[in-house]
Amino acid sequence: MLGMFCVRVFSGLMGFRATPRVRSLHSFPGITVAQIDEEVAKLLQLKAQIGGDDGKHQFVLKTAKGTRDYNPKQMAIREKVFSTIIGCFKRHGAETIDTPVFELKETLTGKYGEDSKLIYDLKDQGGELLSLRYDLTVPFARYLAMNKITNIKRYHIAKVYRRDNPAMTRGRYREFYQCDFDIAGQYDAMIPDAECLKIVHEILSGLDLGDFRIKVNDRRILDGMFAVCGVPDDKFRTICSTVDKLDKMPWEDVRKEMVNEKGLSEEAADQIGEYVSLQGGMDLAERLLQDQKMSQSKQACAGLSDIKLLFSYLQLFQATDKVVFDLSLARGLDYYTGIIYEAVLTQAGVATVSTEAQNGAEESVSVGSVAGGGRYDGLVGMFDPKGRKVPCVGVSIGIERIFSIMEQKAEAAAEKVRTTEVQVMVASAQKNLLEERLQLVSELWNAGIKAEVMYKKNPKLLSQLQHCEESGIPLVAILGEQELKDGVVKLRVVASREEVDISRAALIDEIRRRTSC
Amino acid sequence: MLGMFCVRVFSGLMGFRATPRVRSLHSFPGITVAQIDEEVAKLLQLKAQIGGDDGKHQFVLKTAKGTRDYNPKQMAIREKVFSTIIGCFKRHGAETIDTPVFELKETLTGKYGEDSKLIYDLKDQGGELLSLRYDLTVPFARYLAMNKITNIKRYHIAKVYRRDNPAMTRGRYREFYQCDFDIAGQYDAMIPDAECLKIVHEILSGLDLGDFRIKVNDRRILDGMFAVCGVPDDKFRTICSTVDKLDKMPWEDVRKEMVNEKGLSEEAADQIGEYVSLQGGMDLAERLLQDQKMSQSKQACAGLSDIKLLFSYLQLFQATDKVVFDLSLARGLDYYTGIIYEAVLTQAGVATVSTEAQNGAEESVSVGSVAGGGRYDGLVGMFDPKGRKVPCVGVSIGIERIFSIMEQKAEAAAEKVRTTEVQVMVASAQKNLLEERLQLVSELWNAGIKAEVMYKKNPKLLSQLQHCEESGIPLVAILGEQELKDGVVKLRVVASREEVDISRAALIDEIRRRTSC
Repeated sequence: MLGMFCVRVFSGLMGFRATPRVRSLHSFPGITVAQIDEEVAKLLQLKAQIGGDDGKHQFVLKTAKGTRDYNPKQMAIREKVFSTIIGCFKRHGAETIDTPVFELKETLTGKYGEDSKLIYDLKDQGGELLSLRYDLTVPFARYLAMNKITNIKRYHIAKVYRRDNPAMTRGRYREFYQCDFDIAGQYDAMIPDAECLKIVHEILSGLDLGDFRIKVNDRRILDGMFAVCGVPDDKFRTICSTVDKLDKMPWEDVRKEMVNEKGLSEEAADQIGEYVSLQGGMDLAERLLQDQKMSQSKQACAGLSDIKLLFSYLQLFQATDKVVFDLSLARGLDYYTGIIYEAVLTQAGVATVSTEAQNGAEESVSVGSVAGGGRYDGLVGMFDPKGRKVPCVGVSIGIERIFSIMEQKAEAAAEKVRTTEVQVMVASAQKNLLEERLQLVSELWNAGIKAEVMYKKNPKLLSQLQHCEESGIPLVAILGEQELKDGVVKLRVVASREEVDISRAALIDEIRRRTSC
Repeated sequence: MLGMFCVRVFSGLMGFRATPRVRSLHSFPGITVAQIDEEVAKLLQLKAQIGGDDGKHQFVLKTAKGTRDYNPKQMAIREKVFSTIIGCFKRHGAETIDTPVFELKETLTGKYGEDSKLIYDLKDQGGELLSLRYDLTVPFARYLAMNKITNIKRYHIAKVYRRDNPAMTRGRYREFYQCDFDIAGQYDAMIPDAECLKIVHEILSGLDLGDFRIKVNDRRILDGMFAVCGVPDDKFRTICSTVDKLDKMPWEDVRKEMVNEKGLSEEAADQIGEYVSLQGGMDLAERLLQDQKMSQSKQACAGLSDIKLLFSYLQLFQATDKVVFDLSLARGLDYYTGIIYEAVLTQAGVATVSTEAQNGAEESVSVGSVAGGGRYDGLVGMFDPKGRKVPCVGVSIGIERIFSIMEQKAEAAAEKVRTTEVQVMVASAQKNLLEERLQLVSELWNAGIKAEVMYKKNPKLLSQLQHCEESGIPLVAILGEQELKDGVVKLRVVASREEVDISRAALIDEIRRRTSC
């Protein structure tokens, strides 16, 4: 059907207008439907260019839903954020790896629970079935198992893909960056875990996003709590998901969901309600270890002891000021086995910046998490043919919200964000000096100076100077006939308009001196 | 059918073993086929972990065909290459942008000719039809048209995707990096074009890959040549594709293809043969402008004059030593409209490194192009609703071959490639000093020192020192009871084994002094 239609359109258009593009089609002897589609698209495009009909076949000029371009200003901010994050990861001695943007579909299967429906699959074009990566943790675990690596400290910064509804989520994209830091290996309890929290502390402080909190909890404490509250074993996971909603819903609604939808007894729900309202520090962990009910669960006790140990290490790291032991923290992903954590920005001003209200109505919820992670000791074993486990703990920094806050801040401050690093513009004061300009700019490039020249034979001096003002270039090296005769260059400071003649021989050093700050 | 099968497997396994994972399935009320698939995969995985049957359902632990991971050593080399390339792009005043990894399918349609079959499509999961980007040029043109940008100098470094047969191509991957630099805008002839060639010259010199050549030609010269040699208009493109094979096939075979397959007259083929054997510099362009036949083509003359102008600018840039005007250079892509170029590495030793012979047999062909580009004045207009053109010229550096050469070089030199930048390891000489180590390493981190500590309560001094040797950490800060009492740290230089006591107050400065090189 489609093939027939295409052929008709194709031959119909053939006699339309004999441009070289159309004529070149004659040379295809055995044309396929795909080729015809391709050619039809070309012809329609050509048609739109030639005369433009009803515009029906014109391109939709847009990026795919939930994705966006980064313009040079946004890239400048992005690079600043990355440099803070990478600086921190390197300070902590991490190596870096990279993995492909897609994985075999089966590599991702069975790792994300109900969220699996959000995975992007590639079309079956013959060969393997592939999916775009959903996070960087599963590819990391696959990498470890595949290369039989049992210990590594690595970071990985790359885009991941989720077919979420971008209109429903606040500030969330379908293509977004994750900045992951993970420590794999059999080590003594809580030492690598504490370092991950220290890293979150350093990065969020370094990015200067206002105040923040890092909530911590432990899967074993949650499971122990469910057990002692009388949650049936087979409801642990689903009740855990409901607890996870506490940052978006009041307790009353969470309780209703537990009782009415999940079929939990009212007593059990109320007992959970008491626990999940608790927040504190090491003292809370100590108190719960003495708690009559909680202390009955071995699992919970193991988790609580580790929380105590974690806080003692965080004291040494001077990081306890931002860390809260919060029994309501649950986190969605299946693969966590121990400590879990999540960082949220708490500054009110910041929250309104990044929460895009769904229907234009103001929302007063917190900005949501900008980092999260935890311990996942079983994931690598899922890939190992013999199920050999490699204990792992890691953290993922979510960059998109941080970007939008930084962007907003830059705009609010009316900051001039430079998008190039050009130190000097090679300009001319008179006509017919193109060759001299090209020669000089080339000398500067060869000396490692960042330099520009306008791509015109005879640009006006004013427009050359204007370009410097606009793009923040600090210096102009001006050539004129007199300067050439004297063997000098007029060096102009854009900000002060001060001008000074510098000999050609001294120019490079002078530019270096003036731009090394 | 599939649905039925899944349900059977599913219920069959349900009674198998009552682990928490299996039991939790009860909680799904209205299960879908996709969910069942997911659960089946989990169960089979669990089964493999529990007992392992015939291994039939075990994962294939691999990356997708034609893709690869980068390990930390490869990443260290990759970052070095990127830093040279980005350094050059920034030196020339380029901004940077980023675009999504996938585009609307129609954005890519009609841009790549016969190569369109190599585009990766995403599965139709409802919503837009998407494809992975095939290069960075088409997304750039889409970006310019969408944002109505008429002049910009930008670079873009990102991965692109081609469903090529990776076994058939030498050193080519299905996922690979392109490093693109483009200048868009209405400027005077050949000035931006010359800068692109200067950039290739700087980058290939800077990467120290041995000798190289940059071949240049012009689409208008090729078209003019075809016209004066008597090639019918409708065969221009297909004959151009055949000429493009001259770097892989001897002239005799190319001639045969022209005559036998493409139906060109023997006389026309022979005339082309004479022209495409020509190589030279500005002199050749001058000679061809006088050539009786060639001078009959207005197009060819325009191209030849521009080649002359280009060489005059390249002389000012001191870049003519590597540039050859080569009439056999054709390049495959449809969108070029003027100057085209391609850089090849010519050093024999290098060639054998990167050419992977298909059947293990030695190949003596050149290493193939590591950079290419040209002028494409019509591409942006294809996206603009009114067909407004934005002239563009650009270059794309192909990184994969450069990587493999650099990797090979690093191995051959038995160079120790460091994969971290750690300056100092905080170690202990005795037991029970974990807290003191954590406190000190935290102080160093807070001071911006790159530092590590072993994640063990009581690591042996020897294993701490061995780790430094292995990963190239230059300094060790050793804590012992005596040092703590004396308020000092023993600073050990790993290379010389020299040790010196430094007061705690002076430690940070001392580490900075010793590692600032």
